Amino acid sequence: MKKNFKLTIEYDGSRYHGWQHQKNERTIQGELEQALARLTAQPVVVIGSGRTDAGVHAEGQVASFHCDTRLSANELQKGLNSLTPDDIVIKRCEPAAETFHARYDAISKTYRYCILNRAVPPAVGRQYAWWIRKKLDVDRMRLAIDCIIGTHDFKAFEGSGSPRSTTERRVVRAVITKQKAQYLFCEIEADGFLRYMVRNLVGTLVDVGLHRITPDDFKDILFSRNRSRAGITAPAKGLFLMAVKYEPA
Amino acid sequence: MKKNFKLTIEYDGSRYHGWQHQKNERTIQGELEQALARLTAQPVVVIGSGRTDAGVHAEGQVASFHCDTRLSANELQKGLNSLTPDDIVIKRCEPAAETFHARYDAISKTYRYCILNRAVPPAVGRQYAWWIRKKLDVDRMRLAIDCIIGTHDFKAFEGSGSPRSTTERRVVRAVITKQKAQYLFCEIEADGFLRYMVRNLVGTLVDVGLHRITPDDFKDILFSRNRSRAGITAPAKGLFLMAVKYEPA
Repeated sequence: MKKNFKLTIEYDGSRYHGWQHQKNERTIQGELEQALARLTAQPVVVIGSGRTDAGVHAEGQVASFHCDTRLSANELQKGLNSLTPDDIVIKRCEPAAETFHARYDAISKTYRYCILNRAVPPAVGRQYAWWIRKKLDVDRMRLAIDCIIGTHDFKAFEGSGSPRSTTERRVVRAVITKQKAQYLFCEIEADGFLRYMVRNLVGTLVDVGLHRITPDDFKDILFSRNRSRAGITAPAKGLFLMAVKYEPA
Repeated sequence: MKKNFKLTIEYDGSRYHGWQHQKNERTIQGELEQALARLTAQPVVVIGSGRTDAGVHAEGQVASFHCDTRLSANELQKGLNSLTPDDIVIKRCEPAAETFHARYDAISKTYRYCILNRAVPPAVGRQYAWWIRKKLDVDRMRLAIDCIIGTHDFKAFEGSGSPRSTTERRVVRAVITKQKAQYLFCEIEADGFLRYMVRNLVGTLVDVGLHRITPDDFKDILFSRNRSRAGITAPAKGLFLMAVKYEPA
């Protein structure tokens, strides 16, 4: 009789080729499946709430897996934390309903993109932020980001070569906050994300902040559904999957 | 005619054997002297405000050096930032008075020690904090830390094998603040520090926070001048040299 478990995972994505299992490459899913196979002496498939790309971090990725084990959720957590490298940490391991599925059941995900906006690059924490030298006009960026709230077709911000059946997503929250020491956080919560969507949005928001385009241009790009009009893809290292929401069990 | 310059430096100490030049080991001073020799085609001695130990970080280390160059302070900064590894960043380079000396002229230094106090270790930022699993009683730690303010003999908190002519130091500020996401900062400003002084103070403060000793015990340890009574030396990776103060030029 297989049991179902829910994991909440923090990872530093710097050394990984992303979440999804790949032959011959280190991935988060791969490390977790390897550790679970050792702990439970059976092949285990770990289902993430979604993939994160190479170099992207997580403070609250969620995953689920079925396995046949006498280990408690607490013992599984301890076992995983002792077997995985120190850049992967299981923050929580809980028993889940038989039918719980980390991807299908997710209601929303929150991503944070971290920018350091100052004259010199960072030495401390350089793995965790995109450095922008020129002063960003944050109020202008806020005017632009407001227009993504609601249900929109985000095709203009989708990575190339990754077509989805639908490119419509519902954004429920999108804010830019100033932090200590000249850091900016751009946080977006949505029912789902297209590939590179946050990084493409942030790359284009930075164009707004640098007065290369106007907030209205940003809006036009969104409505154009034309990827070639959006800005660059912001680097992976500034992106964090912060949380995944589910219906209360 | 040699000119004098003042540098303000940020570094991630993870990969270095500390500040001070050593044969066959990577050090911050060594990297800076190597880059300056290339930029100015002459041997340059870089004087730090003080040494930082292996693995210790800095957000505001200060150094000075004399050299014979036509390069402006701004050009030196750019040159250094292009020649040093990306875990060393020159935040400022300024012309300094002929007699300015980064060590002798320092009035005070501020160190920050970063603790992460939660049930699971960090994956993100694990290079920059000491993880303490059990809940710390921060109010108790604050009661203890108050007693170090003022002029005291800190012999009890000095690293062994590093005798100084005097072990008296004047602490002008010592606070523990709660940060977001279960981080604690312990910040201490003093006219000078003994070797391992902050790390030994923090190791002993954690004993107070874990109810292993009382705030009064902490005070007794300070007054005992007896190293063997203090707690463990907190790990280097949580320590940051934040700022060095000088008289206005």
